[in-house]
Amino acid sequence: MKVHDRITIPVRWEVGCSAQAETSPAEFVPAQVPGAVQLDFARALHYPDYGSGENFRRFEWMEDRHYLYRAFFPHPGLEPGQRLWFVSKGIDYAFRISLNGRCLYAREGMFAPVEIDLTECLMEENRLEIAISPVPKLHPAPADRSQAAGAVKPPVSYGWDWHPRLIPLGIWDDTVLEVRHAASIRDVHVGYVLSEDLQQAELTLRAQTSAVEGLRYRWTLRDPDGAGVLYREGELEREVEIGAVLESPRLWWTHDHGAPELYESEFVIRSAAGEVLDRAVSHIGFRRIRLVMNEGAWDEPRDFPKGPSVDPIQLELNGRRVFAKGTNWVNPEIFPGTITEKRYDELLDLALEANFNLLRVWGGGIVNKDSFYDLCDRKGLMVWQEFPLACNDYPDDDRYLAVLEREAEAIIRRLRKHPCLAIWCGGNELFNNWSGMTRQSWALRLLDALCYRHDRHTPFLPTSPIYGMGHGNYVFKWEGREVLETMLESRNTAYTEFGMPGISPRSVLERALPAEELFPPREHSSWQSHHAYHAWDALPDTWLCMGLLEEYFGAADTLDQLIERSQTLQCVGYKTIYEEARRQKPYCSMALNWCFNDVWPVAANNSLIAYPAEPKPAFRAVAASCRPVCTSARFRKFVWTAGEMFEAELWVLNDRFAEAPGLKVKVWLETPAESTFLLEWNSPQLKPNANVAGPTVRFALSEDAPPRFVLRLEAEHFPEYDSEYLFLARPKETESPRTAVMNV
Amino acid sequence: MKVHDRITIPVRWEVGCSAQAETSPAEFVPAQVPGAVQLDFARALHYPDYGSGENFRRFEWMEDRHYLYRAFFPHPGLEPGQRLWFVSKGIDYAFRISLNGRCLYAREGMFAPVEIDLTECLMEENRLEIAISPVPKLHPAPADRSQAAGAVKPPVSYGWDWHPRLIPLGIWDDTVLEVRHAASIRDVHVGYVLSEDLQQAELTLRAQTSAVEGLRYRWTLRDPDGAGVLYREGELEREVEIGAVLESPRLWWTHDHGAPELYESEFVIRSAAGEVLDRAVSHIGFRRIRLVMNEGAWDEPRDFPKGPSVDPIQLELNGRRVFAKGTNWVNPEIFPGTITEKRYDELLDLALEANFNLLRVWGGGIVNKDSFYDLCDRKGLMVWQEFPLACNDYPDDDRYLAVLEREAEAIIRRLRKHPCLAIWCGGNELFNNWSGMTRQSWALRLLDALCYRHDRHTPFLPTSPIYGMGHGNYVFKWEGREVLETMLESRNTAYTEFGMPGISPRSVLERALPAEELFPPREHSSWQSHHAYHAWDALPDTWLCMGLLEEYFGAADTLDQLIERSQTLQCVGYKTIYEEARRQKPYCSMALNWCFNDVWPVAANNSLIAYPAEPKPAFRAVAASCRPVCTSARFRKFVWTAGEMFEAELWVLNDRFAEAPGLKVKVWLETPAESTFLLEWNSPQLKPNANVAGPTVRFALSEDAPPRFVLRLEAEHFPEYDSEYLFLARPKETESPRTAVMNV
Repeated sequence: MKVHDRITIPVRWEVGCSAQAETSPAEFVPAQVPGAVQLDFARALHYPDYGSGENFRRFEWMEDRHYLYRAFFPHPGLEPGQRLWFVSKGIDYAFRISLNGRCLYAREGMFAPVEIDLTECLMEENRLEIAISPVPKLHPAPADRSQAAGAVKPPVSYGWDWHPRLIPLGIWDDTVLEVRHAASIRDVHVGYVLSEDLQQAELTLRAQTSAVEGLRYRWTLRDPDGAGVLYREGELEREVEIGAVLESPRLWWTHDHGAPELYESEFVIRSAAGEVLDRAVSHIGFRRIRLVMNEGAWDEPRDFPKGPSVDPIQLELNGRRVFAKGTNWVNPEIFPGTITEKRYDELLDLALEANFNLLRVWGGGIVNKDSFYDLCDRKGLMVWQEFPLACNDYPDDDRYLAVLEREAEAIIRRLRKHPCLAIWCGGNELFNNWSGMTRQSWALRLLDALCYRHDRHTPFLPTSPIYGMGHGNYVFKWEGREVLETMLESRNTAYTEFGMPGISPRSVLERALPAEELFPPREHSSWQSHHAYHAWDALPDTWLCMGLLEEYFGAADTLDQLIERSQTLQCVGYKTIYEEARRQKPYCSMALNWCFNDVWPVAANNSLIAYPAEPKPAFRAVAASCRPVCTSARFRKFVWTAGEMFEAELWVLNDRFAEAPGLKVKVWLETPAESTFLLEWNSPQLKPNANVAGPTVRFALSEDAPPRFVLRLEAEHFPEYDSEYLFLARPKETESPRTAVMNV
Repeated sequence: MKVHDRITIPVRWEVGCSAQAETSPAEFVPAQVPGAVQLDFARALHYPDYGSGENFRRFEWMEDRHYLYRAFFPHPGLEPGQRLWFVSKGIDYAFRISLNGRCLYAREGMFAPVEIDLTECLMEENRLEIAISPVPKLHPAPADRSQAAGAVKPPVSYGWDWHPRLIPLGIWDDTVLEVRHAASIRDVHVGYVLSEDLQQAELTLRAQTSAVEGLRYRWTLRDPDGAGVLYREGELEREVEIGAVLESPRLWWTHDHGAPELYESEFVIRSAAGEVLDRAVSHIGFRRIRLVMNEGAWDEPRDFPKGPSVDPIQLELNGRRVFAKGTNWVNPEIFPGTITEKRYDELLDLALEANFNLLRVWGGGIVNKDSFYDLCDRKGLMVWQEFPLACNDYPDDDRYLAVLEREAEAIIRRLRKHPCLAIWCGGNELFNNWSGMTRQSWALRLLDALCYRHDRHTPFLPTSPIYGMGHGNYVFKWEGREVLETMLESRNTAYTEFGMPGISPRSVLERALPAEELFPPREHSSWQSHHAYHAWDALPDTWLCMGLLEEYFGAADTLDQLIERSQTLQCVGYKTIYEEARRQKPYCSMALNWCFNDVWPVAANNSLIAYPAEPKPAFRAVAASCRPVCTSARFRKFVWTAGEMFEAELWVLNDRFAEAPGLKVKVWLETPAESTFLLEWNSPQLKPNANVAGPTVRFALSEDAPPRFVLRLEAEHFPEYDSEYLFLARPKETESPRTAVMNV
């Protein structure tokens, strides 16, 4: 049986720039597609690594230029029944496509795909051009994220507290000239509704085709083992709709609760002779995801006058109320055009290693490329997907809303096919004063309406935080209180952003900073440009937190010592938050730190993974805190005084949905000099998805306690459940913490 | 110029009932249209007044019957070019319409209008039939509001704490046979968008017509004085769309902030000869209504982890942040079919008299008839309109959602034409545990999407209360605390439901209750059926609150004494809440009591107006508290002890948007025996829409204080701003309040 595959015609792109739209570029440089015009010029002009020092500033002139991509190609010599298409998954941002001087398409918006049949406009020699407008700016000044408030474009690239100002433009996703048969498939979507008991799936395949007379379609559904479970054939029309029922579908689970089972759908167009003229393969994961009320939340509020109960954020996957452990995902690259499947893959493997089951794709950045969602489908990771709105007041403006509607519709239609998609969300922090949007904002009402229309089975949130959730804080100590204390007093349904800064590993610092600036860190150096000072205005020495590090550990003598201390504090902070959030289950159902990865070589940041994919020590600490089952200790502070009565509650944290025998937990006090046995606790049997609280360990710290000590929880026969907690001890006589110098 | 008006063909309706749908009724009784089948049978069977005693229970058998309306009429002898239409504004609930045995239309839903062209099915003698299904019930038991959770039908009629179980069925709104010209108007909507400075209106008229060739339309817009300001003519098509710009439109204001200016739009279809074949007249009020953030609300929350700011509820009318004073409107009749324009008019005039500017049309009841909104337009009252969802968990169910979508769309298209429409709202108390819906509920996402699509310029709320608002309480004292104390400690952006019970006037009691049950009130009598006992399960003696009345006043000797005491407490409570809510401006922006009117003769209720339109004393008290400008006192309790230091803060409340000179306020202590001058305060100048706080009055209550005393605030030269506050005094030696008997 002959199969006509789509054929890609290789083209060589080049790009030029000019100050005015009307002026043709004087010269062109080679362009990488997908990529970014900035990277093409940087390459041509031999700019040094923008990740290093102040080099990124050299890109500034590129913001306001007009760009013109072009490619010359001969007529591809089509056979009868063949068509030549221009196909792009994403062009950033406002653009105009011409062939041989004739404009074929113009649009604003980087996320909706472009498909243009070029066949009728082809000549013997062809010139394909894509004109790109300058960076969209709502106003000329201030030069910050507020300039992005009129565009459906990631505001993060206009500058953020962990991202330099570098605003990509150009072809950023797969873009090809493609020969297709005249009878080709435009779109296939296999939707389904699961019965309440999850024992039956009602499938509906909807295909748009450019059909011609006398053809047939054939639809095959294969189970995760590759066995065919459904076949349908029929006469091809422009709109094909096929209904089918699948009994006992194998369910898609996150990796920590089962297997991410994927069915394969193959839809083909066949000629009367049986030749395959086109085909579309996609994957289906059967799962039901809901947001249900957090346990205990319906009992509140109690007093009159009475408000509403909080908004639900408990994820229910296939009927299980799963605790969501995860992180905030940001672009892995400043220029998304350079992101490859491999880049996604290495980071997503780290997410698995961290025992995460949910990634919040933060609205300040891009909606990812297809391979990201394919990988999440396969790895069993849930995705909370935001639209590209963040920390701005996006206006009730018809022009903006029209762009948003088209872009959002394309995003929804693209991503709804993925079982990993767990939550739609309007954007980041929109209901706080630094953004200024409200439930009345048209952009958010529109997004909710679109998600309802095209994908109502996936929950929708207007923003994060919503009522009941907590965002922040992002430092170890705030207004005199340590995060350990704050968390004990917090009561939130979800912690959807909490940060803890840590300095990057030395190798990253050596790339980010000139050698002579490495130590000691100073303001107004590249430490500052790389987010160690004045990143977050609320604290001038974020994310380095030099003052705090000195308060806890005294002045550092070396860069390595400074790095170790900063990363230690990051470990302690993150462990505290993840584990306390888990202890607050079932009222609390989610813990996502800010943020997973870095986008470029930073000096310090809240991230767990330094650029490009180097785990910080906090990564391992968090992975331990997120184990499905683990021992845990709850305590109220990090620094204890010699002679003081130390206290910590013992817990077993359990997110598994199976009964398990109780654990025998032994508790040890570890100092460099000795290990002291403190307590043995036989926990009761572990019930599905329920933590167990145990006794409180109490002991008087010795008068000569060493500066650091560790509480170690040892689970007999289950070393994989062991946990360790580091503390500082201060001598009794220390009056002022700032004067306490400890050598560690 | 000849004008062809629509001609109504008089018909005589009758109605029969049967146990099964297939069985024809054995006999028919005369039917009143609009009305309710229950009322027709009650009339035919000579049932006594259902408002009296237990008579309403006699209607119970009618719930599960099938009904058949019918009318016989001869062929109306149409002239050439004439058509006969069946037109109904509302048939309750599931129905099927047939002519001469042929089914022409069937539907579920009481709010979408019905228009059927009967012409082609007419015979010499005609039988028009409307079959009505039994009351929709989600389940057979329990027989309460939860049965309404699958229907777009007011749940209140299934029984509420102020409404007996009496569930109407039948033709409830205007329904006629109408002769129209073949070229007739189906719908006209004049939409507009005001420029940011309100100086220009961009109008768009959209008309649907059953056009025939060669006709013309003419559109005239007249200003509030009747002067034509816009004319447009053109060739008639099925869809007419006309754009126009009006400079400096006169704005629609609520009665307390200006004049409710109404323009008149007249759209006519004309023949080539100039004859008017059909016309549609409607009114337009130009206003911009937004919900903006309450002042001060963006500053919260302060601490990390940080949630979102509260939802905005500050009404902004034409750029003014107006304080909304109003009430919760409930059906004025149990059977809405009997509501007339006159009935609406008398109640709405009382709303004006109460100084209200906003009515919340509560989601437990009906969406009102057209005349209600016409009157609100003309009187300058804003309407917060809920969809018919209340206190139930309306399901994520395709069948229900399909009905809801069609009904809601009809409701939106009908009401969006009215300038009075200030807020759309999904329904009542849906985000609290007694309902169980959340922001994820499909019904509410659907309603938001529909409102966005058809009327996005009007704000939408999913329910009340939302985050920031307070509902309740509904009694004077709760868990040992008086409402006076509770209100001082509350901080809400809006009080959208607060109740204070009062016994009905004697005349109403004499209708509601058998003479022998009148005094003293007892449980298990008609006092109970008429909501004096066990109305609200949380307190068994609501709404009478006999225990509380005895605590404050001792046992009553007569019915009149009991009524006076209950109504006194209601006055004090309501004055406290409205005035404290106003004092909390600008953070607080709204105060709506529960509820305005009664639906039938009740023994006791939170209402201000007894059935049918008899103001209780609390009505006058509230009217005084809601004056645009008034003096006011703030105090922490109602009952004081002889010798105690009395304290009250002085205020001037001002909702007017104009500067005004300060007031000279004299404060008097009034007892039956004497008036004592306490203090004189010269308030500062009154700034627009801003209250003024003054000094605190302090004096020691005399040892022989009489049981009641009054604080009187006298505004020199402005007696219309005077205020009075009643207090109780107890002798010092009284230990237990329950033993204190006071004669008043």
